Amino acid sequence: MSILIKNARVITLDSENSILEDACVYIKDGIIESVGAEPGVSADRCIDAAGKTVMPGFVNTHTHLPMNLFRSYADDMPLMTWLEEKIWPSEARMDETAVYYGAMAALAEMAMGGVTAFADAYYLYDWYIEAIRKSGMRALIGRSVVDTDYAEGERKFSEMLDMRKNMRGGRVDVGFAAHAVYTCSPSMLRRIAEAAVGTDVIIQVHASETASEVDGCMKANGTTPIRLLKDTGILDSKVIAAHCVWPEEEEIELLASGDVTVSHCPSSNMKLASGIAPVPDMKKKGVNIALGTDSASSNNALSVWREMTECALIHKADSLDATAVDALSALRMATVNGAKAMNLNSGTIEKGKNADLIMVDTSGIRYAPACGNTIPNIVYSGTDSDVCMTMVGGDILYENGEVTFCDIDECMAKMKEFIQSL
Amino acid sequence: MSILIKNARVITLDSENSILEDACVYIKDGIIESVGAEPGVSADRCIDAAGKTVMPGFVNTHTHLPMNLFRSYADDMPLMTWLEEKIWPSEARMDETAVYYGAMAALAEMAMGGVTAFADAYYLYDWYIEAIRKSGMRALIGRSVVDTDYAEGERKFSEMLDMRKNMRGGRVDVGFAAHAVYTCSPSMLRRIAEAAVGTDVIIQVHASETASEVDGCMKANGTTPIRLLKDTGILDSKVIAAHCVWPEEEEIELLASGDVTVSHCPSSNMKLASGIAPVPDMKKKGVNIALGTDSASSNNALSVWREMTECALIHKADSLDATAVDALSALRMATVNGAKAMNLNSGTIEKGKNADLIMVDTSGIRYAPACGNTIPNIVYSGTDSDVCMTMVGGDILYENGEVTFCDIDECMAKMKEFIQSL
Repeated sequence: MSILIKNARVITLDSENSILEDACVYIKDGIIESVGAEPGVSADRCIDAAGKTVMPGFVNTHTHLPMNLFRSYADDMPLMTWLEEKIWPSEARMDETAVYYGAMAALAEMAMGGVTAFADAYYLYDWYIEAIRKSGMRALIGRSVVDTDYAEGERKFSEMLDMRKNMRGGRVDVGFAAHAVYTCSPSMLRRIAEAAVGTDVIIQVHASETASEVDGCMKANGTTPIRLLKDTGILDSKVIAAHCVWPEEEEIELLASGDVTVSHCPSSNMKLASGIAPVPDMKKKGVNIALGTDSASSNNALSVWREMTECALIHKADSLDATAVDALSALRMATVNGAKAMNLNSGTIEKGKNADLIMVDTSGIRYAPACGNTIPNIVYSGTDSDVCMTMVGGDILYENGEVTFCDIDECMAKMKEFIQSL
Repeated sequence: MSILIKNARVITLDSENSILEDACVYIKDGIIESVGAEPGVSADRCIDAAGKTVMPGFVNTHTHLPMNLFRSYADDMPLMTWLEEKIWPSEARMDETAVYYGAMAALAEMAMGGVTAFADAYYLYDWYIEAIRKSGMRALIGRSVVDTDYAEGERKFSEMLDMRKNMRGGRVDVGFAAHAVYTCSPSMLRRIAEAAVGTDVIIQVHASETASEVDGCMKANGTTPIRLLKDTGILDSKVIAAHCVWPEEEEIELLASGDVTVSHCPSSNMKLASGIAPVPDMKKKGVNIALGTDSASSNNALSVWREMTECALIHKADSLDATAVDALSALRMATVNGAKAMNLNSGTIEKGKNADLIMVDTSGIRYAPACGNTIPNIVYSGTDSDVCMTMVGGDILYENGEVTFCDIDECMAKMKEFIQSL
C-alpha cells in the first residue's frame, strides 16, 4: 500500500527543523520513503494537502485511557480527595465492558486530536488491550502495580514479560507501571527494578506530583521521591516519570543522567492544584521532557495540542521570561521527545521513519495571515479540532470527522450506561 | 422576526445558575421572550438543538482587532521588545484597507468562537468602525489616547463624544481608551478623566501589566499605576482595566470599590511573560473580573473559551488550591461579568434579555459521557470550534461553519497582501 501526499507544508522536525512548502510525502508499506520533491512513482492513493500542514503525530506520554468514563465526574478538587473519595471507589465498580468502552472513547478522542502514540498506565484488563490493538495506535501499556499486588507480584511480572514477548513486532509494547512512592513501598519498587533488569522494558511511574507526596515520602522513607526511585534501582532502567512538579536541583540531575523522560502534564498539574513543574530548569539540565495529558478525569481532555500550548505559555509567566519555553521546544516535546521516550522510530517526517503523521487544516481564519512564524502559529493559535487526518504506520485512523476503528455512538452510549449505574 | 430553539440543554447563568434540559428558548425581535417550556406560539424559524447546549455568548473585554494582521509576526518576546521593535513600527505602516480587513478577520474569528460582544481599544479609523458595524456584534470601542495626542486632545474628545451620541441605539458604543500610565502622563490622564465626568462613557486602560510598568510608574510618578489612576480621577468613571497583574492589596481594594472591571487576560499575560494576576485575591475582595484575549498578536487567538479554561486552571496551580477559581466562576467571568463591564442587557439566558447567545455541539466524544458536571464539562473539555451558532440580538452571525457578515477568503487574501508588503 502506498500513499502520496502532495502540495503540503511539511514541518519535518528533522535535525534542522526544516519546514518545506508545496512538498510531497511518499509513504510505502507504513514507512516514509521520501519527503520533498515529487517522487515520480505512482501511488495507491493520492492526497491533496493544499492549505494543509503535515507534521509528526503527537505522543501522549502519560494517560489512563479508561478514565474517560470519569470525565467531569468530579472536578475542582485536590489530588488525594479526588482519588480517595471519587475515583478509587468508582474504579472498584468497573468491569471489562466499561473499561473497553472507556478506553475506546479515549483512543477515538486522541486519534481525532492527532495523537499517534501513547504511554498508558492502568490495570491490564483483556478488553482494554483489545481496544488498544484494535485502534492501530502505537502504545506502551503498563499494568499499574501497587503494594497490594505484593503476594502475586512474581507471577504478574512474568505474565507481563510473556505478554510482551508475544506482542513483539506489533504496535503495542508492555511495561511495568510502578504507581507511585505513596502506593509502592521501597521493597516493592526494588522488586520491580529487579524484574526489569536485563530486559529492555520501560517503567512508568508517577513521581513528585505534589508537595504532600514529597513530605509523605520524607516522613516514610527519609528521602524524596526521585532519590527513592534512584536508590531502589528504578532509575537504572528506561523510565517515564510522570509529573515531576517538585524535584530538587539534585533530583533534576538524577533525571538528566538516567535514561529518563519526564512526562510533563501541565493541565492536570493545574487542575489538581499540584503546582507548576520546573520545566525551564529541567530543560537547561538536559532532561528529556515530553508531554502527557493524564486522564480525561483530571484534565479534562486528551489533547496533547492543548498541553503543548499550555507548556509554551505557563512557564513564561512562572519564570517571567518570554523565552522560557519557546514554541519549537514545546512542539518537539509533544512529538520527537515523546517518540524517544517510547523507543519509537517516529517523531519526525524523514525518509525511513514510520509514517506516524497528521495533516492539519491551517487554511482557516484562526491561522491567518499565516505568512509569519509557522511553528508559533501552530503552537499558539491551533487546536486539535484542526486535525483532519491521523495516520499510524501508513494506516489512516482518522480522516475528516470519521474515526476508522470504532463506532463512536455505541461507545458513548455504553459509557453513559456505566456512569448512570454508579 | 421570531426564532424558537427546541430540545436544548440551556445554561442560563441566572441568579441560581439553573441548567435546563430539553428546553425551549423563544426569541422575538432580538429579545428572549421565554425560556423553558414550549411557548405555544409559532415562530419564523425553528432550530432543533438536540445534543446541543445553549448558553450566553462570550464577552471579550480586551482586544485590539486590527492586530490580527500581526498574528505570529513576532513571538516569544517580552512586552516592551515586542511593542518597540516589532509592533509599533509595523502599525505605523497600516492604512485603512489593512485595518478594515484585520478587524474583519478578528470579528469573524470571534463570531466563530462564540463571542457576541467585545471591548476594543485602537485608533478610530473610519473603516475599522465600518467593519464593526457590519459584523452586528456588540462593541465598545475606544480610541487609544497617548501623550502625543495632547495638542489635539480636546478636539478628539468632543469628536468622540459626538460620534457616541450619533451611535446611540445601535450595538456600538464609543468610549475613551487611555492607553497606559507609561504612555499617558498624569496630566493627560486628568484630561481624560475630566472629559468623562458627567457622561456615562466607559474608559478602557491597560493597568499594572508588568512589573517593569510598576517600577517605571514609581520612578516617574512616585506611586503605582492603579493608585495613579485613582489620583488622576480615572477610577471615578466606569472603567475596564486590562491585565492588572501586579496590583498591591490596597490597589485591589481601589479596584473593588469603584465601578471597575478587571479584564483578565491570562494567555497574553503568559505569552508576554507579564506574570500571573492575583485573580483569587481580586475575586475574594469583590472585584468584577471579566476575561479578555488581548490581540491575536500576543495570544495568538481570540478565543474567550480558551481564556476561560486557562483562568480555571492557572490560578489553581499558582495558589496550590484546587478551588481557587472553579469552573462556574470562570464561565461567569467569560459571560455575565463581561456584560456588566459593558453595560449590556445580556450575559444570561432569561426573559427580557437580549438574545446574545450561542449554541454549542456537546454531543461529541470530547464531552462524553456528558452526564456528570455540566459546567466543568464545558469549561475544561470544550473548545471554541464546538460552537455551531452565534446570535446577537436575534441575528445569526455564525452558523455551521459560515460567517454571515463577511467574505473570509477575501479577508485572508487582503491580510496576506499587507503582511507581505512589510
